[in-house]
Amino acid sequence: MSLLVVGSVAFDAIETPFGKTDKIIGGAATYISLSSSYFNSQVNLVAVVGGDFPKSDIALLEKHGVNTEGLQIKEDEKSFFWSGKYHNDMNSRDTLVTELNVLGTFDPIIPESYQDCEYLMLGNLAPSVQKTVIERLKKRPKLIVMDTMNFWMEIALADLLETIKLVDVLCLNDEEARQLTGEYSLKKAAKKILTMGPSTVIIKKGEHGALLFNHNEAFYAPALPLEEVFDPTGAGDTFAGGFIGYMASKNETSYDSMKNAIIYGSAMASFCVEKFGVERIVDLKNAELEARVQQFINLVQFEISLV
Amino acid sequence: MSLLVVGSVAFDAIETPFGKTDKIIGGAATYISLSSSYFNSQVNLVAVVGGDFPKSDIALLEKHGVNTEGLQIKEDEKSFFWSGKYHNDMNSRDTLVTELNVLGTFDPIIPESYQDCEYLMLGNLAPSVQKTVIERLKKRPKLIVMDTMNFWMEIALADLLETIKLVDVLCLNDEEARQLTGEYSLKKAAKKILTMGPSTVIIKKGEHGALLFNHNEAFYAPALPLEEVFDPTGAGDTFAGGFIGYMASKNETSYDSMKNAIIYGSAMASFCVEKFGVERIVDLKNAELEARVQQFINLVQFEISLV
Repeated sequence: MSLLVVGSVAFDAIETPFGKTDKIIGGAATYISLSSSYFNSQVNLVAVVGGDFPKSDIALLEKHGVNTEGLQIKEDEKSFFWSGKYHNDMNSRDTLVTELNVLGTFDPIIPESYQDCEYLMLGNLAPSVQKTVIERLKKRPKLIVMDTMNFWMEIALADLLETIKLVDVLCLNDEEARQLTGEYSLKKAAKKILTMGPSTVIIKKGEHGALLFNHNEAFYAPALPLEEVFDPTGAGDTFAGGFIGYMASKNETSYDSMKNAIIYGSAMASFCVEKFGVERIVDLKNAELEARVQQFINLVQFEISLV
Repeated sequence: MSLLVVGSVAFDAIETPFGKTDKIIGGAATYISLSSSYFNSQVNLVAVVGGDFPKSDIALLEKHGVNTEGLQIKEDEKSFFWSGKYHNDMNSRDTLVTELNVLGTFDPIIPESYQDCEYLMLGNLAPSVQKTVIERLKKRPKLIVMDTMNFWMEIALADLLETIKLVDVLCLNDEEARQLTGEYSLKKAAKKILTMGPSTVIIKKGEHGALLFNHNEAFYAPALPLEEVFDPTGAGDTFAGGFIGYMASKNETSYDSMKNAIIYGSAMASFCVEKFGVERIVDLKNAELEARVQQFINLVQFEISLV
């Protein structure tokens, strides 16, 4: 089924204990699009870049089957730029630079040809922009998944709560879930979020895996224990891309599908952190992905027969 | 199969955001013995207490089928006492008081009737004492599991490394694994520990579950997402008790058994934190335990068919 991905397409400059990059392609929608492209042949992108954005990077997205008709290019402006430095443990980072540039006035225009999309992934963006996307779709998608971050809780909470009301699945990390709800227990936090609109919550815990909650059930997907995390940038978005890509490919919004989708998302994210930026997820082989998913299966499989 | 448990039997005084206790029964071997008693009818305890230790607490252990022949009572001395205060997030705590008392000169005497024990659980103690226990057993047990903590890495590292050489399974938490090996990645840390003697490593991650590693495989057991952690004291020991109790009851030291044992250990630990001290694990019903294990099964179960 066709998928609509909205979010930032941008430049990142990253420094980790393993090295640093110049400006490379980044942004939530970039990671989401690339990741979901491994599941779904029809990924439709809505985003904005400046005239400084390389045509070769746009071609890279197109090579992965990403429809860039909805990618606005503001020739006289500059692309969104983020620069960050990771600490030694890779679990925390300092933002060095944030230049909104074109993203500051982003008006998400939906091409007519995208109107039949049944799956919508709202990557991290101002919640008012995410809401505008939903409002501009003539038919409500079967599944709307929204990612967000603490920044919006601080400066646009009212907008954020309005947008959360409209989505099916809210995807955020553990600290963000705690901040949004004021609950330390992730189970309590999830319960509160389930009263805010979404029928499903995904809480990402980085190296500790991810939790999926709906009103009746809970699912815990592990993260693969890795020898080295080279660069965590985009791992959460790559996870989200794998999740929505799998869901759209199965065209089935059940809880069981979501459990599998989280495993595929986790597998995609485990590749993402192996190299800088998108490097590892631009030429993944299908067999590599299947082997990685098998590792996840082995990682949690046990057999207890209760009488 | 009969099980030998060695460790502290002590007084704890605990303060959490939910309240505080006077001196209550605590100690690694207390939690391990009680927890393992749900699996195994023959738990043999080696420990030491002072004359101040209540007969009713010894009776409590005996009521659970724990053989206290090896529990030394030093009438003129005082029991080991620990007091701690948990912070709001329950993941960190301050030690307020540590009085070694009888534990400072503990000589672990193994009663003759314990000599046939096939399973040995060395609860957290000075590594030289743990080593003495192994040396005093005429026949090596089928499985030796050792718990330890960072304290011994700081003051008795040489002893610790000597003792680790002799055991089958080393059980420690994530921070301890990092400290012992100097590796941040838990996969790398586990690999290093597997060169130190043990053929299996269990890394406890508290609310993030537990990892099991051997030379070829890895297993990730989740922790149950809980609404409230009332008191984490003893959770790690309760986990270890469930693990060794299950292993001894099955009398089968395979990797598959260990995976199941970790799930049972995690289930026992999830009860432990629901009330102060040992309160929740002294009158657990079998049906409660089975229902909890079923929750763990549901928590990680998914079905992906790879072609």
